[in-house]
Order: sequence, then structure tokens, then C-alpha cells
Amino acid sequence: MSEKRVRVGLVGFGTVGAGVAKLICEEGDALAAKMGVRLELACVVDVDTQKPRPVQLPEGVLTDDLNRLVADPSIAIGIELVGGTGVAKEIQLQMLRAGKDVVTANKALLALHGNELYQAARETGRCIAFEASCAGGIPIISALRTGLAANQITGMYGIVNGTCNYILSSMSAKDEAFSAALAKAQKRGFAEADPTLDISGGDSAHKLAILASIAFGYEIGLEDVFVQGLDGIARDDIRYGREMGYCLKLLAIAQRSPEGRISLRVHPSFIATDSSLARVHGSFNALSVFGSAVGEIFYYGRGAGMMPTASAVVADLIDVALGNSRTTFQHLRLRPRAEVKPLVEPIDDSVSRFYIRVMAKDKPGVVARYSRILADHQISISGALQHEGTGPSNTVPVVITTHRTQEKNMATALAELTRLDVLSGKPVCIRIVDIPQDKDT
Amino acid sequence: MSEKRVRVGLVGFGTVGAGVAKLICEEGDALAAKMGVRLELACVVDVDTQKPRPVQLPEGVLTDDLNRLVADPSIAIGIELVGGTGVAKEIQLQMLRAGKDVVTANKALLALHGNELYQAARETGRCIAFEASCAGGIPIISALRTGLAANQITGMYGIVNGTCNYILSSMSAKDEAFSAALAKAQKRGFAEADPTLDISGGDSAHKLAILASIAFGYEIGLEDVFVQGLDGIARDDIRYGREMGYCLKLLAIAQRSPEGRISLRVHPSFIATDSSLARVHGSFNALSVFGSAVGEIFYYGRGAGMMPTASAVVADLIDVALGNSRTTFQHLRLRPRAEVKPLVEPIDDSVSRFYIRVMAKDKPGVVARYSRILADHQISISGALQHEGTGPSNTVPVVITTHRTQEKNMATALAELTRLDVLSGKPVCIRIVDIPQDKDT
Repeated sequence: MSEKRVRVGLVGFGTVGAGVAKLICEEGDALAAKMGVRLELACVVDVDTQKPRPVQLPEGVLTDDLNRLVADPSIAIGIELVGGTGVAKEIQLQMLRAGKDVVTANKALLALHGNELYQAARETGRCIAFEASCAGGIPIISALRTGLAANQITGMYGIVNGTCNYILSSMSAKDEAFSAALAKAQKRGFAEADPTLDISGGDSAHKLAILASIAFGYEIGLEDVFVQGLDGIARDDIRYGREMGYCLKLLAIAQRSPEGRISLRVHPSFIATDSSLARVHGSFNALSVFGSAVGEIFYYGRGAGMMPTASAVVADLIDVALGNSRTTFQHLRLRPRAEVKPLVEPIDDSVSRFYIRVMAKDKPGVVARYSRILADHQISISGALQHEGTGPSNTVPVVITTHRTQEKNMATALAELTRLDVLSGKPVCIRIVDIPQDKDT
Repeated sequence: MSEKRVRVGLVGFGTVGAGVAKLICEEGDALAAKMGVRLELACVVDVDTQKPRPVQLPEGVLTDDLNRLVADPSIAIGIELVGGTGVAKEIQLQMLRAGKDVVTANKALLALHGNELYQAARETGRCIAFEASCAGGIPIISALRTGLAANQITGMYGIVNGTCNYILSSMSAKDEAFSAALAKAQKRGFAEADPTLDISGGDSAHKLAILASIAFGYEIGLEDVFVQGLDGIARDDIRYGREMGYCLKLLAIAQRSPEGRISLRVHPSFIATDSSLARVHGSFNALSVFGSAVGEIFYYGRGAGMMPTASAVVADLIDVALGNSRTTFQHLRLRPRAEVKPLVEPIDDSVSRFYIRVMAKDKPGVVARYSRILADHQISISGALQHEGTGPSNTVPVVITTHRTQEKNMATALAELTRLDVLSGKPVCIRIVDIPQDKDT
């Protein structure tokens, strides 16, 4: 069969954009030899055409005129790597309306306006491919969409933000404070100058919304995801947690109960030290996915960075060029938001185990009054840790872990604990997530 | 878009066949809702139509007449789950010639006659989809073919035979002898009554040939793979290896050097205890794949069994039904055997580290003479282990590990060691595999 030639245009010549250009220019022959498809980089659009980049484009390819891409009917695929939710949306819509398929890594845009963009793609008979939007180098979207299609997905537990995982790994391995770990991550290029979107859990929530849409087949939006970030995480709790057999990770969690209730959460999570996810260090990403037929599948790889993300973009380009993405996209059904909304479990109803640390004043009766409040709310204690000696201001940290209880019970108990005069300050409360175990029987 | 209806026929109503029928019958509505494709099970062909199976087929679907499938033009896809390399090949060819796409889990057939079958599929404009042939529930073939398409694959290290991994895990965790571990695996259904194909490494070699074909883009055959199975593996060596920081696994290894040399091997391998693959226990499968753009990707899941394998078969059915498999298949280029043959490195040239155990007689000068032979062959020692006290027949086990050396050096040294009168019996030699590390820098 003869080689298929497909012209593509790229908008956004930043780090990932440069990686994509590099792969298309330098791996073009290998790709053509292996896949029978030759990608031609027709143009690269960026407002800054002067900045030096780590790739040499052919003469005349770089431009600041988006119209050169949109108005060129020979360009079949447009790659949007501008990022953000403003102009990027307009660019995608323009490309779709001009009859081009779209490839993007823009998770924020898809999490916020995905349904509108998918609709536009369907109306124009085009597709949007977005493997690069979640977990960079790990081909998790195609796995959920195709490889696991025959499964009901019951749970998905992911480390999908490399910045947060890098920080937590540093805090854990080197007993560093949050601020020191963040500064190191920034210095080494694993965190942005403004790390808010990562640290807040927002970026993980974007990815979870996209992944859960595909896994469950619903139009899931960002507003369906409960989000809590790394603010206020103290190294002491990481250390106490480890003493009790837990490792702290920022997890993106999607669960579906046998009754069809859906729980979507991003929050700091204590997980068993011997679980696969606990062994994911540094900026790496990983996901444990549970399917009704396959059991557990675990994926691990680089979640971000120039070449891993570019690898996912180019994989999408090939799939779009072959026509496969469009077929899959046009066939994929997402049930409408009206159907999903009543199924999403409010965080208050969610059931979990908890890690609680209080700073107890050195007085008689502290444990009695403290444990009475928990008992009053039907919260039962599963483990406890109190080192001898006193800490700052004559207080002593008392850590307990609980059995499963509803969030709202815990919230009321925490409010009462905060008012207790034998405790100092607000209790620290971190969810414990018991990832299901799939083993030989 | 309206629902697409696709009629499929299944040949081979064994364990996996029953799983496939179950998924099609019981998950049909969910699949149609999610993927827009409705699979109709037109017929199930098996020589035994009486045996009870764990799935209830609709009236009239089960038959012993293959012709009902082949001659029915309304059946678009034929599933071959007969297994083996004899009649299965004829069935696949008949289905292709009758204009049907083929879905199969038959690794032995594809490893042996894949090129002939692919050729037949190309000539008839059909495709063969075989995700289920390697690592059951892990969608590794589509990952190599699509998700990692933009990468040069430099290495692939896999645990792809659940029987062997179950046996080695048992031997390691419970200090069991090989025969006891095998008997337990058989009793629990993780090993066949005749486990030869698994234990010999043959099954892993079949899978490696298929995976390496896709990863490297060559017509790789079974004869390109060096194979050594678990015969003669002693629990003592598993224990000594562990004391030195290694875990024993049967690995399927594919490597490509920067110069394009290809090394394909299945053999017992000591790997670092803290590597991802060392933590794969029981009947699970896993693969570490290294790509030029993504770095390491690690996949873990169930490699066999009724539902995991059926899940992969149904994923292929969907992909074929959508037309994607055919496009991918027709575009995928495998360079011909004539090109690959000179690139395959003979095992003699292969460079590795080694674990060697000799049984030394209790005489002066043993270590001197033993280490002299190694030195004479430019083999340098990297670690040693000798416990005090003597073992059976007044001999003492002496274990060493070596730095990297060529297989042929080691083979000559081993022959000389075997003849050494201060040693008893043949030395035990197991390769140490240093899996590349991909970490944050």
C-alpha cells in the first residue's frame, strides 16, 4: 500500500510544540516506514516567531498568522498547544469549522468546554483527539476507550500531576517542608513559576473529569469533581502516616458503585505503603484501573515534559491521519449531563477512612474527651499513635486512624474537636484510601 | 449516529470462548450504549456441543459445523479460539478467504505462521486482530502499535507467562521446590496438566516474537528468539540471589542497540529486587517498555484467564467492527525477514552479567583456581557469597556475580569450571538483567 501523506498545522510553539515539531521532522521517515503515514508540518503558528527553540524548522514554516493554517484547505489536522481556556477554544472551533480534525493536549479547556467542542466536532463531521491531555506519555485514554471497552470500569485511582507527586516524594524521602520541596521542584523544572493550578488539585481535577467521561461514558464536568489540594500538608503528618503504614499521594479517584452512583474526588490520600501507587516517585504518573472483566490494570510512565507529551500528540496525529480517531470519536457516546448529575455522590455522603492528628494539651482526660466525641458520631478508631514527650507549646501530637465513616459525620466531629479546650488548634484530617486488591485466589 | 450492528461467529467454545460469548451476550447493551456498536453472536462452533458451559447461548447458536460460519456472508468477523498451529491456521485462512476479518488469541500460530496469515489478510483486504494473544488483559499491542508509534522502542522487558511467574513467586515466597510449586499451580488452575509449553519458555517466546514484530517493525519469527525455560531452577539459587539483592523472573527481553542490532531472549533472569518487575507476583503479567520519546512505560495486569482474555478479544471485536483495525493493519509495515535476519544478535555475542554457583569441595586452593579460570576469560567478579559450614557431600556452595561479559566467554569458562576437580558437578549459571532506570534527573 502506498504511503499516505497528511499535512498538519501546529498552533503554540512552546515546549511541547517544539517536541512535536522535532518528532515530525526527525522521526518522519521512521514513522512512514512503520505506519505508512507521512506527516508534513505545513506551518507552525506562534505570536513569538523570534525566540530560539530546540528544533530547526524548515524555511517559511514558522508564522504568527493563524489564518495561514485555518485558510489552507490542504492542512487536514490542526494541533492546538496554546493551552488555557480562552483563545485556545476559539482556535479549536475555527479549525473544526474549517474542516480540520483537532489534536490537543489542553485538559483545562476540555474539562471546562469539552462538551461544546465535541458537539462542534460532531456537527462538522470531524474529531478531537486528546491522548496528550492526561498523563502525557501513558496512552491511558485509548486504553479506556478501546482496550478496556468491554469492561464496566468500577474504579480508577491515579497520580496524574507530576508536580504534586514530585513535592510529596521529596517531602517523604527527605523529610522536607512543603515550601522547600516546592522550591526544589521549581528549580528543577518540575513546577511552574506559578504552581497554583497544580498545587490546588485543579489540574488533576481537569484530567479526572476527562478520564471519567471516557471510562463511565457520561458528560462529566469539572463541577462534578470534589477537589482539595496540597495546601497545609505538613511533613509531620507524612512521617506519622508512614509510621502507621501509609504513604501520602495526591490521588484522582473515580468510583462507580454497583448501583451506578459515581464518586469523583481529588484530594491528598494516605494509601498503603506496599501498594503500586505508593511506589510512584518523583514526577512520574500512574493509574490503577479496575475493570469488571480484566480486574486491575496498572499503568506507569512520565506524565509531562516535552518529549513524553509530544509522543502522545504524534500518536494522535497518526491515529487521526489513518481515520481511526474520527471513527472512534463519532461512535463514542457520552450520556448527557442531565443523566449524570443525579448520579454524582455529594462529598458529604462519601464514605472513607480517616487519619486525624490533634495537638493535645498536657492535661488529664484529653483522650477520654477526644474519643467520646468520635464515639458520639459513630466513628470508631482503628489505630493510634502517640509518642512520649511533649511538642511545641507543651502540646503532644495524638494521631488516630478511623474505620469507614461518612464525610458528614467526620465534619461534625471535627467541628466539635476544634472547640475542645484540651486540644490546641484545628485537627488535621486526611482521607485514607483503601485501593482494592486484585490478587490470585 | 445510529447504532452499528455487526454479526460475529466464534470457533472454539473453551474457557476463553465462553468468556467472549458471556461478554457479548451480557454486556451487549452497555457496549452499544458506550461505543455505538452492537455485536451479534451469530454462531458458536465447537466439536463438543454437549458439554455444559458457564454461559447460556441463545437457541440454535451452538453448532459443530464450521461451514455455518464460513458460508454465512452476514457474518463480518470470525473469532478463532481453537488454539494450536494445525487446524486453527486452516480456519483462519478459510475465514479470511470468505471475506471475514479475524480476531484471535492464538500466539503460537501467529509466532509460527503469522507472516503467511498477515499476507493472506492483506490480499483479501481483511485484517487479523490479536490483542488477546499477548498479556491477556493488558492492551499492550495497541499501545505499541498506536500509543507509542512516535517512539523508537529501545527495550522491552516482560513477564508474559503467568504460569512461570506463579511458580517462581511460590518458590520465592514460600521457599518451595520447583515440583511442589508446579503442583500447586496446577491444582489452582494456573498451570495446564501438561505445562511443557509454559515451563520451557516456548509460550513466552511466541509472545515476544509477536510483540517485537510490532515494536521494531520487522517480520520477526520464533527462530530469532533465544529460549531457555525454568528447567533445573533450584530454590537455593532463588534464596542466594535474594540475599544478593535479586529476584528471579522468567523474562522476555527485546532490545535494539543504537546501531540497530536486535537481541531477543527468553530466559530466567535475576533482576534487582526493587525494580517494578520484581514486584509482579503470582499469575500476573507486566511489561516495562522503553521508548525514545516517552522513556519508561510500565504495564501490569492479568495475563490470562477467562475474562481478562475475553476482554481483549471483545476490545478487538469493537475495533474491527468500527473499521479501525483494518486501517491500522493495512498500514502497518513489517520489514521482511531478509532484512531482519542479519540484525539479530546470536546469543553467543550477547553481553550480560551472570550469577554463578559452584559446589566447592572442602579443599585448600578452591577459590584461587576457580577465580583464576574466570580471570583467564576476562570475567571480573562483582560480588560473592559464601556461608560458613559445609553442605551435602562435604561441599559448600560458593556464589559469585560477575560484571558484564560476552556469553561465549562465559560458556568457555563454565566448561572449564565443570572439569575442575575441586568443584562438584556442573556450575549453575543464571543471567543477571539490569533493567534501565528512568528517573527524574
